[in-house]
Amino acid sequence: MDIKFHFPKLLKRLKRGPAIIHPKDAGMIIAYTGIGKDSIVVEAGAGSGFFTIILANICKKVYAYERKMEFFELAKNNLKRAELNNVELKNKNIFDGIDEKEVDLVSLDLPEAEKGVALAYSALKTEGWLTGYLPNIEQAKTFYIECYKTEFSEMFVLENIVREYEVREYGVRPMNIGLMHTAYLVFAKK
Amino acid sequence: MDIKFHFPKLLKRLKRGPAIIHPKDAGMIIAYTGIGKDSIVVEAGAGSGFFTIILANICKKVYAYERKMEFFELAKNNLKRAELNNVELKNKNIFDGIDEKEVDLVSLDLPEAEKGVALAYSALKTEGWLTGYLPNIEQAKTFYIECYKTEFSEMFVLENIVREYEVREYGVRPMNIGLMHTAYLVFAKK
Amino acid sequence: MDIKFHFPKLLKRLKRGPAIIHPKDAGMIIAYTGIGKDSIVVEAGAGSGFFTIILANICKKVYAYERKMEFFELAKNNLKRAELNNVELKNKNIFDGIDEKEVDLVSLDLPEAEKGVALAYSALKTEGWLTGYLPNIEQAKTFYIECYKTEFSEMFVLENIVREYEVREYGVRPMNIGLMHTAYLVFAKK
Amino acid sequence: MDIKFHFPKLLKRLKRGPAIIHPKDAGMIIAYTGIGKDSIVVEAGAGSGFFTIILANICKKVYAYERKMEFFELAKNNLKRAELNNVELKNKNIFDGIDEKEVDLVSLDLPEAEKGVALAYSALKTEGWLTGYLPNIEQAKTFYIECYKTEFSEMFVLENIVREYEVREYGVRPMNIGLMHTAYLVFAKK
Repeated sequence: MDIKFHFPKLLKRLKRGPAIIHPKDAGMIIAYTGIGKDSIVVEAGAGSGFFTIILANICKKVYAYERKMEFFELAKNNLKRAELNNVELKNKNIFDGIDEKEVDLVSLDLPEAEKGVALAYSALKTEGWLTGYLPNIEQAKTFYIECYKTEFSEMFVLENIVREYEVREYGVRPMNIGLMHTAYLVFAKK
Repeated sequence: MDIKFHFPKLLKRLKRGPAIIHPKDAGMIIAYTGIGKDSIVVEAGAGSGFFTIILANICKKVYAYERKMEFFELAKNNLKRAELNNVELKNKNIFDGIDEKEVDLVSLDLPEAEKGVALAYSALKTEGWLTGYLPNIEQAKTFYIECYKTEFSEMFVLENIVREYEVREYGVRPMNIGLMHTAYLVFAKK
Repeated sequence: MDIKFHFPKLLKRLKRGPAIIHPKDAGMIIAYTGIGKDSIVVEAGAGSGFFTIILANICKKVYAYERKMEFFELAKNNLKRAELNNVELKNKNIFDGIDEKEVDLVSLDLPEAEKGVALAYSALKTEGWLTGYLPNIEQAKTFYIECYKTEFSEMFVLENIVREYEVREYGVRPMNIGLMHTAYLVFAKK
Repeated sequence: MDIKFHFPKLLKRLKRGPAIIHPKDAGMIIAYTGIGKDSIVVEAGAGSGFFTIILANICKKVYAYERKMEFFELAKNNLKRAELNNVELKNKNIFDGIDEKEVDLVSLDLPEAEKGVALAYSALKTEGWLTGYLPNIEQAKTFYIECYKTEFSEMFVLENIVREYEVREYGVRPMNIGLMHTAYLVFAKK
């Protein structure tokens, strides 16, 4: 019952702290928002910095907020190991305000994420995306409704189930045990 | 029984031709290979150019092969609409050879993709990734075994089932009808 | 995008009315509760009578409640076609009381199903099962919590995602489009 | 990473031997074939006797074949514990012949199950069902094609993914880790 996760090289040798955004979900956020090498993104909470690093590897600039000193230090060390120079990591509660303007993506992965919806709306450029990574369905609902009230123009909620296969000459089948759930992903376009 | 797909802005207003790599799978390829703004990637077949555009939006340079003149013209027009200047589109059969060297990713989405495995191996830098997008399980198996024989160091096969939710004040649930399958994704690291 | 459902013979030629319990979910209720040919079961609402017929085909006796005259008539006709003689169909609101005692299963598939939880508890024998078939997650939660308060000894919530495969000599794969969701199933053992 | 399975009472206190047909799949076989209290069924291999017991609890008569003496003894003991008197357990290889005629269901869960397809066809009544429980996709394909050649009138292949939910007052979500795969289920109607 041991599950092997597949992480890209840039995430290996990093120290783990709080729960991270799994590559399967990171990929969904990247693909459905269309961020790329010209994008400016804001992220909170940085946690271990795994998603920060994934974003920094793709985008022009990442502003990452982490309120807790313990995680802030962890993320800082992981960012150093990853040798990325386009991240500004802030030891700050994002609910106290987003300093950036005209950003392409605000990604929220923290408790009571709905508190950041209006702030995200102000920080985003037109057609920019807000995403919420929310473990419980009630959180996804609350977040979605808050986006609706904040006049985002397009919203949807997705989850993904990724199965890994065992491939042998004599037979192929999905692995018996696997990751059934990480979080619900809410997407809202300004 | 109408399914709405969510495509990022850069894919809207493009003309559709052959089956495309769906964002849910594009996201998997991006996240599990760790490609980013410094990456050089090779892709075949370009088809409508949808995945070419997703890759070009993220990577430094994309070399896209398309053997069929009809799709080559379609992809060329779509690339023009997307206003990307880091794609080299070639009207060439990738099985005749990959011109590039030391690339970070070779993505194959075409019939008999296993024919390109050894060529991809030669084109990749160490720790670079080959990915196969394969609708049938037999194709995924053949491709995987070919990678195994070609001495790729790490291989795995994934599929991604995405569900969209209906969110209403009085109740949340997954949409009744949805996309059950697109393709199996094979990942192989040099 | 046409989805073919596979119904056992005893459900063919029946008239359809309100949404039915799909065989995939009927099978879950049967297998996880362990009902069989000695079982006495209570069901509400009978609706089209599809699940009534599945239950009657397996169990000793089925008591089916249907409050709405229109559905009661529909279920009565479908039961006649199925030529089963072990069903007592009642044109009655189950929330007004369950007449039976010491039953093996109470299956609820109707709005505000949580109103029937305490009544079901009284009607069940020890180690008998109550099941709820609930389209929205909030309904499943409310039902589950009501069961918890009513001192059921074991409870769990399941959902069942069924994929059908296309099998051809040259290739096997899941069908592209399919049924993503019907309902959440709550199980509670007295 | 401990997965709790929910088994109905009649399967508790039984001794486990070889891999069993999980209730989620047993339910599918029951619901899609429409077997009930008048049904005569044939099953092989009996293994631990779990599915034998589920079938015996529902059907009129079960004929269970088990070639290996070790499993035959195990199944015999489990059937004794379950106190069912409508099972005939045979220490016999089903590929040597099916003694029964005009049965409603033949369920095969054993290696090289395709060898039993023609025998099953002969044993079944018109509109009776053959089911195969097959861990690998190649086995499901071979079995399906064998059924096709044997002139079964209707065939389909299903798999089901069952997720269990964690329900707490403050939040509902699927359990993180779960059973991703047991087997592919092939259904063929005479």
